[in-house]
Amino acid sequence: MISPPFSYQISARQGRARAGKFVTPHGVLETPVFAPVGTQATVKSLTPDQLAGLNTTLVLANTYHLHLRPGDELVKEMGGLHQFMSWPGPILTDSGGFQVFSLAKNRRIDQEGVTFRSHIDGSQQRLDPEISIRIQENLGADIIMAFDECSDPYDKEYVREAMVRTHNWAERCQQAKRRDDQALFGIVQGGIFEDLRQESAEFIASLDFPGNAIGGLSVGETKAEMHTILELVDQALPVDKPRYLMGVGTPEDLVNGVMRGVDIFDCVLPTRLARHNAAMTRYGGRLNIVNAQYAKDEQPLDQGCTCYTCQHFSRAYLRHLVISKEMLAATLLSIHNLHTMINLAADIRQAILEGEFEDFCIHFLQVHSEINSHQDKN
Amino acid sequence: MISPPFSYQISARQGRARAGKFVTPHGVLETPVFAPVGTQATVKSLTPDQLAGLNTTLVLANTYHLHLRPGDELVKEMGGLHQFMSWPGPILTDSGGFQVFSLAKNRRIDQEGVTFRSHIDGSQQRLDPEISIRIQENLGADIIMAFDECSDPYDKEYVREAMVRTHNWAERCQQAKRRDDQALFGIVQGGIFEDLRQESAEFIASLDFPGNAIGGLSVGETKAEMHTILELVDQALPVDKPRYLMGVGTPEDLVNGVMRGVDIFDCVLPTRLARHNAAMTRYGGRLNIVNAQYAKDEQPLDQGCTCYTCQHFSRAYLRHLVISKEMLAATLLSIHNLHTMINLAADIRQAILEGEFEDFCIHFLQVHSEINSHQDKN
Repeated sequence: MISPPFSYQISARQGRARAGKFVTPHGVLETPVFAPVGTQATVKSLTPDQLAGLNTTLVLANTYHLHLRPGDELVKEMGGLHQFMSWPGPILTDSGGFQVFSLAKNRRIDQEGVTFRSHIDGSQQRLDPEISIRIQENLGADIIMAFDECSDPYDKEYVREAMVRTHNWAERCQQAKRRDDQALFGIVQGGIFEDLRQESAEFIASLDFPGNAIGGLSVGETKAEMHTILELVDQALPVDKPRYLMGVGTPEDLVNGVMRGVDIFDCVLPTRLARHNAAMTRYGGRLNIVNAQYAKDEQPLDQGCTCYTCQHFSRAYLRHLVISKEMLAATLLSIHNLHTMINLAADIRQAILEGEFEDFCIHFLQVHSEINSHQDKN
Repeated sequence: MISPPFSYQISARQGRARAGKFVTPHGVLETPVFAPVGTQATVKSLTPDQLAGLNTTLVLANTYHLHLRPGDELVKEMGGLHQFMSWPGPILTDSGGFQVFSLAKNRRIDQEGVTFRSHIDGSQQRLDPEISIRIQENLGADIIMAFDECSDPYDKEYVREAMVRTHNWAERCQQAKRRDDQALFGIVQGGIFEDLRQESAEFIASLDFPGNAIGGLSVGETKAEMHTILELVDQALPVDKPRYLMGVGTPEDLVNGVMRGVDIFDCVLPTRLARHNAAMTRYGGRLNIVNAQYAKDEQPLDQGCTCYTCQHFSRAYLRHLVISKEMLAATLLSIHNLHTMINLAADIRQAILEGEFEDFCIHFLQVHSEINSHQDKN
């Protein structure tokens, strides 16, 4: 159930795609929306002012990281995450589950939760549904996530076990939750298996969360498998609540996700690629700006891009910054890459509102496929 | 001589202090002014937009660094330094001399110039007055500097030799210069020796540059020695041209310099301290933000500071960023430190314009001395 101060309203639909408004205590998310990731309470190399200049609305932060450092109790004492990181807009925290399963050392899973060692100092830690919710309540994000287990998507027996635990933990998270100014989203798991995904989506839908997430995708499966699962989950989840595809992804993933009913996306890719000298472009192409061919290239990263970086700097300058190991390189590439994703989400929304999303997709996927086949040849 | 498009006008004087306007092709420098250093065509970790937000007017860039990488010819091809780094305001380039004498390997000085090996790739390079001017003309800064030798300030015989070379090179720079849209400043050398400084200031003054710089200070001498030299040079240099104290310095250096007739300052200190986790404060105190005492400190870096960092972030958050090795730490500390210096220069100017600079100095130096004696006790 979606209760005040939250509400969700669909402004327009086209096929399975939706343009909506999700109201949170810290502002409205106009969906589809792409959220930059601020793992440690900072979107790497960018100030909140720069994020706002990119029309960022939603920022994601990580429960696992902030619990370990500086500690969620400290963040609470400092006035909560919004004040601590000076982000006045909506924030989403994940549950910590994904990081425990991918980053932590010596993790030991039981039916109640997970015991693990911190990747920072090796200290023994524990996360379970109640602890995850308590941490997320201390952090104080607008959207918080149920504690789940994201497993190898191909090992069916294990995927089933993890899914059953995830369902059990989802109920415990619901019971543990206290704050009314946070919306708890459930998470569908089930790997690449249609029967498990169907079962998981139906179960999570039955718990009547104010929003639902699709976890365990973009973790090694093929794009075709991801699309099949998205279509199946789209049918099983309630239409009148937002859907969040976790940890995805690229420009083409955004288009493909919205086509299959997704409203919210997040991914570290734009800022991570930036720190590895790569620029994303509108249709999924990438430039490695270190390449010698850009040494005297006066063009911006992406022709026609309206971001601060493309309006002011040449590829030659950006290459110089990277080669000179200047921090500004990461900042300027992050601005461009995030703009590419956030602006694409805004254009997708506009296309849905204007009833032109089908043409948008056909054009986008055609150009994307031409660029990719061209890049493959090189 | 100061010729169009340059001009210099003194708006107010108080004692030896002056508030002036130095007009350049890319804008007016309201002096006293503090210039951030953008060694490799970027003020480390800051965008030009952020610099402009700090009311930066003048930015310094390094001839030695840009000649070696990406190459001044490339910068020229890309439209010159203003366009390359997207800084629309005034730029000053140094001559490369200081870096050759401090950074380069295997340098060999002769009467004509310096042969050295690049600190980047060990390649053999040469700088002399004509080459330095040609590089600076390729870069295209508004203010360019004569090629000089900055020596150990205490070795009198060597200081004299270096000074004679510097004078000879100053004349050669004047003869080599072609572009009318660049103002070439001469540089006074002479270490800590009053007779040499007197001789150097008179000689450089006789060459009638549009502006004069004082080099070879803040390189190991005492503050008292620096002040003595500044007072002496102030008397010998023409009053109706701007004076630039190279590579200085701290808030107290700014006040002490202006008191002794200096108009233009630059220093890497604000951004270098930022990258070493240190915050400067108005009266010369410093905070090492890593200290455990700041872990739960909700205060801004400096009470009453109006910079973006102090308006939005607590010491606790900045400490978290540093400890988490987040790049944003350097950005936010650089913003604060540069604001501290640029804002102090603006306040000094205002005090001179209002005839209150003497009171300003008394108050400033008193608080500075209290803070320093307090910090010494801790």
